[in-house]
Amino acid sequence: MKNIKLQDIANKAGCSKNTASLILRGATKFSKELAEQVKEIAKNSGYIPNYAARNLASQKSDIIGIYTPTINDPVRAGIINDLIQNIHKANYKPFLGIGTPTNGINQSISWMNTFKHLNVALLVLVAQYEMEPKELTNDVPLLVLGCQPPENKIPHDYIAWDRSEVARIAMDHLIDRGYEYIINGCSANTITGQKFLTELKKSNLSHTHFELSITNQTNDLLKIIDKIQKIKTKRRKAIFFGDTLLAVKFMDMALNAKIKIPKDLAVISYDYFPWADSLKVPLTTICQPIEQMSEKAIDIIKYRLANKNSPFINKVIPHKLIVRKST
Amino acid sequence: MKNIKLQDIANKAGCSKNTASLILRGATKFSKELAEQVKEIAKNSGYIPNYAARNLASQKSDIIGIYTPTINDPVRAGIINDLIQNIHKANYKPFLGIGTPTNGINQSISWMNTFKHLNVALLVLVAQYEMEPKELTNDVPLLVLGCQPPENKIPHDYIAWDRSEVARIAMDHLIDRGYEYIINGCSANTITGQKFLTELKKSNLSHTHFELSITNQTNDLLKIIDKIQKIKTKRRKAIFFGDTLLAVKFMDMALNAKIKIPKDLAVISYDYFPWADSLKVPLTTICQPIEQMSEKAIDIIKYRLANKNSPFINKVIPHKLIVRKST
Repeated sequence: MKNIKLQDIANKAGCSKNTASLILRGATKFSKELAEQVKEIAKNSGYIPNYAARNLASQKSDIIGIYTPTINDPVRAGIINDLIQNIHKANYKPFLGIGTPTNGINQSISWMNTFKHLNVALLVLVAQYEMEPKELTNDVPLLVLGCQPPENKIPHDYIAWDRSEVARIAMDHLIDRGYEYIINGCSANTITGQKFLTELKKSNLSHTHFELSITNQTNDLLKIIDKIQKIKTKRRKAIFFGDTLLAVKFMDMALNAKIKIPKDLAVISYDYFPWADSLKVPLTTICQPIEQMSEKAIDIIKYRLANKNSPFINKVIPHKLIVRKST
Repeated sequence: MKNIKLQDIANKAGCSKNTASLILRGATKFSKELAEQVKEIAKNSGYIPNYAARNLASQKSDIIGIYTPTINDPVRAGIINDLIQNIHKANYKPFLGIGTPTNGINQSISWMNTFKHLNVALLVLVAQYEMEPKELTNDVPLLVLGCQPPENKIPHDYIAWDRSEVARIAMDHLIDRGYEYIINGCSANTITGQKFLTELKKSNLSHTHFELSITNQTNDLLKIIDKIQKIKTKRRKAIFFGDTLLAVKFMDMALNAKIKIPKDLAVISYDYFPWADSLKVPLTTICQPIEQMSEKAIDIIKYRLANKNSPFINKVIPHKLIVRKST
C-alpha cells in the first residue's frame, strides 16, 4: 500500500488537511472545483483512508458478524454465499465466523470475543441456536436466520422456517400417498424431530421412532436398517429424516441391504439439496427457499442499523415440497 | 457493549492509564498484585479494548483476507470451512470475501478495496486466478490455494494441485480401461482443458473436443449429447470433465437421452464430490485432498507473517483417483 497521506493531498490541492478530509468523506459545502481537484489527486495518488483511524474517529463500525457451525452443507453455504455478497454490496463488511458444534462452547466464546474486538455493528446467526451469544446480544443487535427462538430466550429479529410446517408437509404427503407405518428418523433432541413426533401421535397411524446419535451415525443407520427389516407388517412403510445429508447416506445403505425404495420403504427428508434429482433414487425433499432468506436478511440488517430501538422483526418463510421417486 | 474506559479501570486500581494499558496487553514489569487487580477490574467491568484504537496504535493487523468466487461447491466450501477455523485458532481474524466471476472485475476491485481498508496482513486466494489483485499483491503477501501462477504473473506463495497430473491420471485410467475414442468436455480456456488436450494429442487415440460456454451450460450439454449420439464409431467412448458439478448434470441428461454409462459412454471428472457414490451411476473422480490444503496453508501463513522477505514457498499436492462405476 502506498503511504500517501492526507496532508500530501491537501498540500497539492492548496487546502487544509481538514478540508481535504471532509471532501473525501462526501461534504458538499466546498466549491465544486476544489472538491473535484481533491478527489482527482486522491484517486491518482492511490490514497486509501486509514480504516482503523476512521473507525476510531467515527466510533461506528461497519462490520456485520456472521456465525455458523459449518459451511459444508448446501443450505448454509447457499445462504452465506449470498449474504456475504449482499452485505458487501450494501457497503458493510461481512465477517464470517465458523465454529463446529462438536468443538464445544469454548470455540464459540472465542469467536464471540473476536466479534466484540471487531466491534461488530450487528450479528447474524445462521441456522444455529445452541451457541446463542448471550453476552453479545445484550449490546449488539442479533438477527437469527432459520430458527425461531425457544420460549426462554431473549427476543430478537429473526427470519425462520417453521418446523411445525415441515412436519405437517411431510406427514400430509405420506398420508396422501397411502403410507400407513411411519418411522421418525430424526433425533428427539431436535426441533424438527419433536414436531414430527407430535404430528405422528396426532395421525393415529402406526409409527416408531429411532434415536440417532450425532457421534456414530453410520453405526446408528445400520441399526435402523436392521430394525426396519425386522418390522412385521403388511402396511406400507415410510421414513422421515430431518437432515437430507443423513437421508442420502441412509438410502445408499438401505439399497445395499436390498431394501427397495419406495416399494419396501419410502424416504422423505428436510433440507434443500441441489443434487436430489441425480441420486440413485431421486429423493423427495422439503426445501427451504434459500434465495429469499438472504434478500430479506439484508433488508432487516439495514433497517435495524438505522432503527436500533424499533420493535423486533419476525418473519416466517414457507417451505416447498418437491416430490421425487423416493415416495 | 458497555462503555467502560481504560481511565475508569486505572482510577479504580489507583494506577496510570498507561500502566493499566500495558498490564492488559501482557506487560510483566509491574507488581503481581497490581497486575491481578487491574485484570480483575477489567474483567468484572466487562472492559473490551477498542479494536480500532489498538490496530491503529500498533500499526499491525491480525486480519487475514480470504477471497474466492463462490462457496457453493464442495471443494471451496471444504477448504474455506477448515481455513477459517484454523486461522482463528492461530489467533488471527479470517475475513472472507466472495465475488462471483460473472459479476465481473468491478466486484473484485470493490473487495480488494475492503481488504485494503481493513489493512489485511496477508491475502489468501482460493482456487481462482482470473481476479488476481495486482495492486494489493505489491504490498501484501499473497498465498494462492489450488492454482499455480501462469508464467506472466508475479511470484508468490502457493499450494497447488498439478493440472498436468490431473490430465495424465484421467488419460492413463481411460487407456487402461480400453477406451479408444476420447472426448474433452472441458473448455479450452481452462488450464485443465488445455492440459487434457495436450495429453489427448500425445496419446494418438481418436478424440474430439467440445467447447462449453459458461453462460448457457444446459444448452451446450444438450448439444454435446446430440453430437455424441451422431459419432459413428465402434470404438469405446469416454468423456472427461474438468468440473464434477458439470459432469453430474451431464450424466443426468445423458441417461435421460438413453445413453448407457459406461457402456455407451464412460464419464470421468475432476473435483472432489462427497456424494459421488450416491449418484445414479457412481462417478469416477480425480479428487483434491482438501484437508491437507488448509493444514499446509496455516503453516505458510504463520511462516510468511514472521518472515516477510524469505523466498516464496511453493508446494504441489498430489491427486487421488477414485474409480467408480462410470468408467
